[in-house]
Amino acid sequence: MSVLKVINERTSYRGGYENTPVPKEDLIKIMEAGLAAPSGCNTQTTSLIAVDDPEVLDKLRKVIESEFVISAPAVICVLTQAIPGYADVYFNVQDYSAAIQNMLLAIVELGYESCWVEGQVTDVHKIGKQMANILGVPDNYELVCFLPVGVAYSPTRHPKKKPFNERAWFNGFGL
Amino acid sequence: MSVLKVINERTSYRGGYENTPVPKEDLIKIMEAGLAAPSGCNTQTTSLIAVDDPEVLDKLRKVIESEFVISAPAVICVLTQAIPGYADVYFNVQDYSAAIQNMLLAIVELGYESCWVEGQVTDVHKIGKQMANILGVPDNYELVCFLPVGVAYSPTRHPKKKPFNERAWFNGFGL
Repeated sequence: MSVLKVINERTSYRGGYENTPVPKEDLIKIMEAGLAAPSGCNTQTTSLIAVDDPEVLDKLRKVIESEFVISAPAVICVLTQAIPGYADVYFNVQDYSAAIQNMLLAIVELGYESCWVEGQVTDVHKIGKQMANILGVPDNYELVCFLPVGVAYSPTRHPKKKPFNERAWFNGFGL
Repeated sequence: MSVLKVINERTSYRGGYENTPVPKEDLIKIMEAGLAAPSGCNTQTTSLIAVDDPEVLDKLRKVIESEFVISAPAVICVLTQAIPGYADVYFNVQDYSAAIQNMLLAIVELGYESCWVEGQVTDVHKIGKQMANILGVPDNYELVCFLPVGVAYSPTRHPKKKPFNERAWFNGFGL
């Protein structure tokens, strides 16, 4: 599919997943897409762990406790390192966000669905640290997000968005 | 081009640009790609201003003072609003980063090159505020980044990156 088509088809999928496994070669392609994203001053602050081993997935599911992830046959966990681009200026949030967006597009291209799950990982339940412990992640990395990966069981839906001319203009604000 | 091909071909281009104008319909497609990115809790915190009017571009170039942007026939400015996803939790950096990544891919798909220029906008020279003033951007929006858009004059180059197995693993850190 063309980039523009995939960009417009991608949406945050919160339904269940088919039982179909995700082949390792697809998980590698998805992670390669993530690592191909730019990073501030080429610091490459983003790292990734794909989980498809049923035993490890079971351990993660116990801490994730999210309905819509329980059935995903694979999960990609996103790690970030707080390495400054220069002086005390950090771009690692931008870096992992660009990597996640690349992966979400690659996931759709390969016939799967996903959802950027970050809030519940870093904020409310602080489950990122528990997930990091299960995966043996060192303290200088933070697990900030995970992406379920699998074939969607239900139809995808697109959220309502503001019209183009309320968010994009030419040559001046609101023009 | 397929998503994976574009993702791997995209790189940060810092050379000059051909004189060829970028048609408005292409700038619209690029901005549509940006706005199609997900946003935390669908807050749609990212807005965009494409600049292709030579007079406005000239004003921007005077504050940008960046060699590799001076010749670009168009520039897309990225605005963000600090709107919380919920409580006091903000995802607007993630939101605009995902939008930028979508636009960078759309730019390559359409035959142009670009570069994510953020550090010099927000940090060192604080030119984002000056650019915002030129474009009439209200105070509740911050101009955080711009993307030059045009046909590359020089060949693109890819930065050296760490090998896959130093940044991506299966079922546990370093595995």
